Parts: sequence; structure tokens; C-alpha cells
Amino acid sequence: MNRFIKLAIEEASNGLKVNEGGPFGAVIVRNGEVIAKAHNEVLASNDPTAHAEILAIRWASQKLDRFNLSDCEIYTTCEPCPMCLAAIYWARIPKVYYGCTKKDAAQIGFDDEYIYDVIKEVAEVKKLESIQIDRSVCLKLFEEWKSNEDRVGY
Amino acid sequence: MNRFIKLAIEEASNGLKVNEGGPFGAVIVRNGEVIAKAHNEVLASNDPTAHAEILAIRWASQKLDRFNLSDCEIYTTCEPCPMCLAAIYWARIPKVYYGCTKKDAAQIGFDDEYIYDVIKEVAEVKKLESIQIDRSVCLKLFEEWKSNEDRVGY
Repeated sequence: MNRFIKLAIEEASNGLKVNEGGPFGAVIVRNGEVIAKAHNEVLASNDPTAHAEILAIRWASQKLDRFNLSDCEIYTTCEPCPMCLAAIYWARIPKVYYGCTKKDAAQIGFDDEYIYDVIKEVAEVKKLESIQIDRSVCLKLFEEWKSNEDRVGY
Repeated sequence: MNRFIKLAIEEASNGLKVNEGGPFGAVIVRNGEVIAKAHNEVLASNDPTAHAEILAIRWASQKLDRFNLSDCEIYTTCEPCPMCLAAIYWARIPKVYYGCTKKDAAQIGFDDEYIYDVIKEVAEVKKLESIQIDRSVCLKLFEEWKSNEDRVGY
């Protein structure tokens, strides 16, 4: 089997042993070298965003001292949820290798597939009410950003 | 205007002044009380996941010492990107108030709308290659999780 997926599984397994979170692990690799590895820490940290991929991206960015990880790949034990998939896009990582699917995750009680369905607008029930207010005032922030010629895009 | 959106704008504005990230702020509120506020810190932290909503959720969870924020609401200066929207679902927050739209964000150079299009499978170009490997080995982690009767769901 793939050696980085094996590492991601070991990482997830370590997390399970100490009950730090769900059965998920991720590894970020650059030129064949492991830059960061993480397991899900939602239970340990009480942080609902502490998925393995999010933590691995955070730590890899810290290690490489840059927010652009376009020269990295990510290996994860499960197809990323929409939060983690979007994080991979924001990090500009061009390649993801994954083991289980979002349907597998749904089978063991994780909402990945449901959140995909919400974003695809095919979910039967939407558990989130979304209300737009005060757009015109918020837009001033965007104008301020756009008018700053020294801004750093990301 | 709404006082919590006003706070979110002030927070975003503070971040812009010190060049910590893009023009985005978020506030988490519970029973009319502000639990956490944050601005985008992608540039300050070099963490591509350091969006205002993610940070606000992280800090609110720490403050309340729980990953379930179902008694909270979130106010944000811009419609959440898919990463932040999914994070709001994972945190079980039932209500989001937002100012600008994802189209407004795209106008000033942020990929929010594109990532939505990728997830909706309508994007013309997909910048991420996604490869499934070693599912059967990864599934063992899921079986281990499911067979643990003391597991805490989240």
C-alpha cells in the first residue's frame, strides 16, 4: 500500500487510542518528504474545525512559513469533507489522495455527505438559516481592500 | 444597522489596518452576548484556514468548552466560503447573518464562488486532482470507531 496513506492511518489510529477524535488522519508531503501529519482532534480540543486535514494544513503552513502549499500533496484516510476540501483549495494544494469515501463516513455517523448535499442544494432539510443584512456597509470593507495597492492576495 | 454586524465590520477593519488578512470579520453570539469575535488572519499567521468564521468558531468553542455551538448564532461580513459554511454546520450553529455575497468576494479576488462551483460540480476547471487509494485498509479505522460503544459522536 501507499506509504503516506499508511502513515495517515497510523496517525489516525494513534488519535483513536487516546480518544482525541474521529477515525481520520492526514499527511502533507512535499518532494517525497513528510511536512506535517495530524489526526482529528475535535474531542481533545473541543474545536469542531479540528479535522485532520485542517490541522495538517495549519501545521504545514507554519513549518514552511507560507500560506501557499502549491508544491505539496495531501494524503488522507477519508475523502475530505467540504470544509477540508475548500481548505485544500485555499492552500492551493493540487493533489489529494484519499482512502474511504464520504458515503463511508456517513455510514459511521459523520455528516460529510449531508454537508455536500446542502452545498449542492439537493439536501432535503437545511439545518442552517441564512439571512443577508447590511450588505452596503460591509461592501465598504471590500472597497477598502481593493483600493489598497499594496495588498497581498491569497 | 445590526449591532453584531457592526462589531464584525469593526473587527474586520482592525485586521485590515494591521494587514493581518482579507476584509472579513465574524462574531459569535449566544443569548445576545458576544462569545467570540475574529478577523481574517491568513496573512498574519500564514495559515490559509485562518478565516474569520473558523477563528471565531475555534475561540467560541474554547470559551464554552464544547464543540457544539447549537445555542449560538454567527454574524459575518461576507457569505461564508464553503470551508466556513461547513465549519458552521460541524459546529451545529443554526443561524448565520451575513453582509456581502460570494459574488462580491469574487469581485475583489477571493475564490469563494469558484470553490462553491467546484463542489456543485459546475466549475469549468478543477484545480485539484483527486485520487482514491487503499480504501479497504482505511475502512478498518472506521470499523474500529464503530465498534467502540463508548465513542462520543460529534
